[in-house]
Order: sequence, then structure tokens, then C-alpha cells
Amino acid sequence: MFDEMWGAIEHLGRDGRTGGYLRDAWSPADLELREWFRQEAARRGLDLHEDRNGNLWAWRGDPSRRPGVVTGSHLDSVRQGGAFDGPLGVVSAFAALDLLDARGFRPGRPLGIACFTDEEGARFGVPCTGSRLLTGVLDPDRARGLTDDDGSSLADVLRRAGRDPGALGRDDETLGHVGVFVELHVEQGRGLVHAGAPVGVASAIWPHGRWRFDFRGRADHAGTTRLEDRDDPMLPFARTVLRAREAARRRGVVATFGRLRVSPGSANAIPGLVSAWLDARGGDTGAVRALVAELAESSGAEVTEESWTPAVDFDAALRDRLASAAGTAVAAALSSGSSGSSGSSGSSARRPAAGPPAEDPRHPEGGSARDPAPGPVPVLPTGAGHDAGILAAAGVPSAMVFVRNPTGISHSPEEHAEASDCHLGVAALAATLEELCRS
Amino acid sequence: MFDEMWGAIEHLGRDGRTGGYLRDAWSPADLELREWFRQEAARRGLDLHEDRNGNLWAWRGDPSRRPGVVTGSHLDSVRQGGAFDGPLGVVSAFAALDLLDARGFRPGRPLGIACFTDEEGARFGVPCTGSRLLTGVLDPDRARGLTDDDGSSLADVLRRAGRDPGALGRDDETLGHVGVFVELHVEQGRGLVHAGAPVGVASAIWPHGRWRFDFRGRADHAGTTRLEDRDDPMLPFARTVLRAREAARRRGVVATFGRLRVSPGSANAIPGLVSAWLDARGGDTGAVRALVAELAESSGAEVTEESWTPAVDFDAALRDRLASAAGTAVAAALSSGSSGSSGSSGSSARRPAAGPPAEDPRHPEGGSARDPAPGPVPVLPTGAGHDAGILAAAGVPSAMVFVRNPTGISHSPEEHAEASDCHLGVAALAATLEELCRS
Repeated sequence: MFDEMWGAIEHLGRDGRTGGYLRDAWSPADLELREWFRQEAARRGLDLHEDRNGNLWAWRGDPSRRPGVVTGSHLDSVRQGGAFDGPLGVVSAFAALDLLDARGFRPGRPLGIACFTDEEGARFGVPCTGSRLLTGVLDPDRARGLTDDDGSSLADVLRRAGRDPGALGRDDETLGHVGVFVELHVEQGRGLVHAGAPVGVASAIWPHGRWRFDFRGRADHAGTTRLEDRDDPMLPFARTVLRAREAARRRGVVATFGRLRVSPGSANAIPGLVSAWLDARGGDTGAVRALVAELAESSGAEVTEESWTPAVDFDAALRDRLASAAGTAVAAALSSGSSGSSGSSGSSARRPAAGPPAEDPRHPEGGSARDPAPGPVPVLPTGAGHDAGILAAAGVPSAMVFVRNPTGISHSPEEHAEASDCHLGVAALAATLEELCRS
Repeated sequence: MFDEMWGAIEHLGRDGRTGGYLRDAWSPADLELREWFRQEAARRGLDLHEDRNGNLWAWRGDPSRRPGVVTGSHLDSVRQGGAFDGPLGVVSAFAALDLLDARGFRPGRPLGIACFTDEEGARFGVPCTGSRLLTGVLDPDRARGLTDDDGSSLADVLRRAGRDPGALGRDDETLGHVGVFVELHVEQGRGLVHAGAPVGVASAIWPHGRWRFDFRGRADHAGTTRLEDRDDPMLPFARTVLRAREAARRRGVVATFGRLRVSPGSANAIPGLVSAWLDARGGDTGAVRALVAELAESSGAEVTEESWTPAVDFDAALRDRLASAAGTAVAAALSSGSSGSSGSSGSSARRPAAGPPAEDPRHPEGGSARDPAPGPVPVLPTGAGHDAGILAAAGVPSAMVFVRNPTGISHSPEEHAEASDCHLGVAALAATLEELCRS
């Protein structure tokens, strides 16, 4: 089933020129993916619910009677992103349910599959919009007013998609249905490659945030305005890019300017405004905060915090239980000689995505699999934000399962996971769901 | 008539939020402006011809029998540009014709009004596309393949506008109709303010060009990729912005990065590609060329020359004749006590554009008018490219008339010209047309 599901969506939103994905929230590609989710839920007889913030929930059992065990992820992408970030968790969720069904497992509590809306924030600049609205950490007025590059507000976009922007906001009823949440995700670094393990479990999510730096100057003619008469905001922006790298190195964090808006944006006009988004993260909250304060001060820009996610330490007892269960399942699947233990009987381990295998020039040893040692799978932190982190911060017991990424590259068409590792991820996810249903 | 015409177009393509104009070539606003041009031509009984490159020509008399005297400019804008750059020359052309008619002047040769297509290059990155194609300095295959920010090629855009992209290219027949060309334009600096003159004539256009710098790196996740593993093209771009300013100062030229494309362009992704457009100009060709070579070398970017316009020295005898004629007309209009000598009988000198009068903090003396001395109007060079420069380089005797801009600011909503100066510009233009019809 995994491979069939993967094949059904891998073309959606794909840029034929680059192989990268363009799955902005509420774009035609995203709407097709949401429809695919509905069909997969219907095929399995699950009850489909779209909550007030656009998140999708497919339930077996009634979570209003007892909070359930939920797994899932998101279907949107960064621009020119990879195939795995998000969809791997959703496809694996359905495949894990199929695997449990094939084994005749009867969960003792409701089981749900979630698809969160606009996890990447590619369109409106704020990541995890769906889970942040759900948990109340994103103000619905602010969300409604966010604009995309065409100047459309989220409220406009929701209305055009037939949704009610007035309904956005904290939704304790929906959140109360989630007894525990586990998100499977492609790893976005090379921790599992170095550990020689196909699957791992998250220990923590680094604190991270996104800030908009507005550099204001005076728009003018690029040919007729003397250098000494210019107030060109591209210059302080450029200085800030270089300072950010230097300060990040000094403070042991990471800092990135990956999104820009230049106005008017004509080659023959000095810009009047350069808006640049800083993404900063690190293991230490104080160091991240100090970096941003330093750059805000030295840049002269007007700085707006668009999102901030405190450090998340996933529940240690839960993650250890899941690491054990996942380790047992992975070892069993490997010793059975079939890495395809995902219920896709007869399916060969074909690569789920097209394109040549990615290579990593930094680590020429590549992502070659070694058999994992018996016992729990590795436990490792991540610098990437996830809906699981938002839910954990809101008090929902949460955990994450990672699948090995041979290149470590993510948010790029080169993002990759081997089919055999994806199948082991499904086996591990099924085992964690089984374990959670016991409690 | 000037004021009525101005009022008919000033809302087209105007961004209500900023007051800036969005008149990309072949956009709905541009198509409306072209339709307005057709109607103004029809109202005066002129023969309208759209050439193979999309330029519009409105003729009185048959230029295939004898090359005519042509005036005009363009109607497209930079993004968030001002109201005057381009449209002032087209509106003034019709108003000058009306003024000549009102005086009973009968031109001894054909008289034409031109509207060139895509002068600014805001959409496809190459300025003066219409006049460059007409004169054969822009290869039609290259033009057809230019893409806008949505990835649409010029060929696609032309087809959607009902034009034949296969017809693009050098058009000697159309060009042969132009015996002499004079373009009226708002000044894009403060030369006339300093001279205390409402109107001037161009001596030369600086050599100028536009180069695309492609900085390539590796797209990756902004949170999980260690600094030492990054290949982030935003850093060499930032260094190049700072170097460009330093080198421009050292070499006595101007250099601007005003347009950028960042891919993938997500806040949480390290860019894989930063494309940045350098605009460079100066009085000395060698200095401009040396600046670009220096930046190409030090940047590490792949550099593509998108346009290059050699220095244009307008014909000295022609410009002196026109400066004399214009000076006489301006002095006459001023001494008659009416600055509204544009044929708009009974029209008060209301400001043609909305918004408060712009102030220039650099020159607190402002743009207050002093009566011009009798004699020729000032003759001054410009750093801005114009279709008149393209025609001059192609061997067409050409000239330009400038109208004072109190702020000197252009390519911005703050671009401005006083209504009284616009009316004097029309009087000066009519006088130059009359002078040219004599020869």
C-alpha cells in the first residue's frame, strides 16, 4: 500500500523542470493532496473531520468519548522542496494502520490520522499555522491578515477555498481528542546515517523562530541618482546577511536569510524597501535570542517576530518506550529478510521518488545501511520545527519517529529516503501505535 | 486638453495603497493604456499603426512618401513607479499637436506620435524592448524566450494578447518612416531645479547596461544544516552588493542591485540560487565596463549581460536648434502670463497627479520656479536610458526635451512635475516640432 499511495501523489505540485515541489498551502496542488487524504480515509472507513483551522482528521473510533492515539504530519511543502518532508508521515500513517489491520490488531482506543495545514509557512511566512491556530499560540486576527506574495490575505485565500476565516482560532474540542501524538518524518540531517540506523526517535526540537527585517530606504532611479544622494536599503541588508553568519558562528547557532521581498523590485530602480526573513535556531534559547537582538540592533531594520517556538523536550519516558518498540519492530523486519514489512505484499523496494540517488559531497561514505544493533533505535535532537513540537508545547504527549535521509539534505529536490528505509519506518510507526494503544 | 488626457489615465494601474504604478508591458493596465492611445489617435483623425514589435504609431500624413517628424514616449512603468516617466511624453505629444492645430500650423511633412512598448523592462528584465527589436539590436529569439516572474515567456504573453511573436524583429520599413524623433520626458534628476529652468534639452545619454548575476549554492534546510556544511549563495551576493557600492564610488559611476530572485525563496530553506540584476551607468564607458568586470571576477557568480546601451551623444546642431526654439516658446508662454499655454483653454493649472507636493530633504531650496533667462533652455546629460537613445544609436536624428522634476526622484510614487511646468513642456515641444517641420 505504501508504494501505491506514494505513486498516487508524487506528481502533485511537482515542477517538471527542477523536480522540486510547489505545494503552497491552499494552492491547487495542496487542495488535490487534501482530496487524496479524504479518499484514503474513506477507503478505510475512517470518519473524516476538517477542523476550524483547516487541519484534517481521519478517525477510527470516537475520540469525543476517549482521547485517541494520533499519527500524521503535513502535505504542503517549501517551494522547490522535496517529496518526503511531510507526505512521508501521512502516507506512513495510513500504511501503518493497514499493517495493524493486516495483523488483526484491534486498538483499545480511538486511532486517528492527522494532516496539519500549512506546516511550512511557505506562502504566508508563518510555519505550523494549522497547529498554532489549533493550540491558540497564533492569534487568529494576525493569521487572517497574513499576506502572500500576491498580496492576498489568508482570509481571502480561505474564502476562495470555500472556508470561513472567521472560524479560525483555538479549538480545545478538537485538541482534546488527541490523547497522544506521534509524527513520522524524514530526518533532515545525517544523524541516522552516522548511527548506521534506518529509524530513530526524537529527543528534542531546538528553539527556533522567524523574524521579518524591514529595511527602509527611498525608491529612486538607478541611473540618475548620485551615490551620495541615495538611501538604498539593499546595503544595510547585505551587511546584515554577513553579520548574521559571523554572529551565528560566534554564538553556536544557525541563522539564514532565505526569503526576500524587494520593492519596487525593478532592475532600474533603487529599492524603497527590502524585507528579509531571518530564520534562527540553536540548542540554546539564550544564544538564539541574543543573536536576534544583536542583528536587530546593528541592522537598523524594523524587526517583527513572526514566529517563535520554544525548545521542546519530548517526554523522556514516552520516547524511550517508543524507541524500544520501534527497535524491536525494525529488528524483526530486518531479520525476516524483508525490508518491505509495510503491508505492501509483493511490492519490490522501488525508490518512492524519481530522480537519481542524491550524493553528499560532504560525507562520501554515503548513506549505506548497516544492520541496526538490537535494542532501542537511536534518540536524537533536531533543528527542524514540526507540528509535533507545537502539540508538545501545548501539553499533548508527543513523539517523533525519524527515517534516515542518506544525503541529509532537505527542503530541496535532493531530499531523499530509500524505499526500504521508508518501509522500516512504517513498521516502526505501527509498533509505536500499538504500544500507545496499550496505555 | 493636457489635463483632460492626464485625468483619463492617471488611475490606470495605480496601486491604491502606495500610489505607485504597476504598468507592466502587456498587463491589463498596459492594454488599457494602449486602447486609450488608439482613442486619442482616432479622435484626431490620425492613422494608427501597430508595428510587428508592438509599438504604436499615430500618423498625420503618409510617412511612406516622406519620413516624418515623430514625438512620443512610452506608457509602461517600473513597478511602483511614478505617473510621469513615459506618459508625460505621450500626453504632451497629443497636446502639442493640439496646440499646433489651434494655431493653424500646417506641417510641411508627416507628423507622428509614437508609443514604444516595454520601455522599462520591468516584466522581462530588458529595457526598451520595443525600440531595440525595431532597430534590430535585440535578437527576436532572445526576446521571445525572456520570462517574467511567473515563468511566462514574452512569446506566451504576446500570444495571449493576440499578437504574433513570430513577427518580432528588425523592421526597417517602420523605422524608415521616422525622419527625426523628439521625446519629451520628466527629468530624473535635479539639473533643471539647479538651473532654475522648467524645461531643458538633452545633450547625451550615459552608457548603461544591465547584468544578471547568478549566485549558485545548494538548497538545504535552514534548521538542520550546520554552518560548515552550507553553500549559501546569499553570502557572496551580500558581499557583491557592498563591493559594487565601493567600486562604483572609486570609479565615479553608479551601480544598483534593485531586482532579485531567490530560489526556493522560503524562510526555512537555504537558497540554492540567488539571481540579482546589476544596473550600472556612468559618463565614461571604460569605467562602467571595468566595474562590471571587477564585480564579475570577485563575485564568483555566473554573469549574463542582458542589455548594453552605448553612450549616446545627441546631434549637437539639432539639440542647439531645439534648445533655441524651446527657449523662445517658454519665454513667450511665461511673458504672456499664462503657464497654461498648452491649448487647454480655461483649464486651471491644477496638479496633474494626486498626493502632496514632494519635498527633497537633500535640497531644501526645493523646486521653486525662477523665470528662465531669455535664450535657449539648458542643455544637460542624463543617466537614464530612453527609446530616443536607442533610435539615435540606430542613426535616427533624435533629441529629448526634459521637464523639471522638483524632487529629482523618479521610479517612485514621489516622482513629480508641476502642472505649470508640464504646460510649458507642451509649449516647448510644439515649438520643436514646428522647427523640425521646417527642415
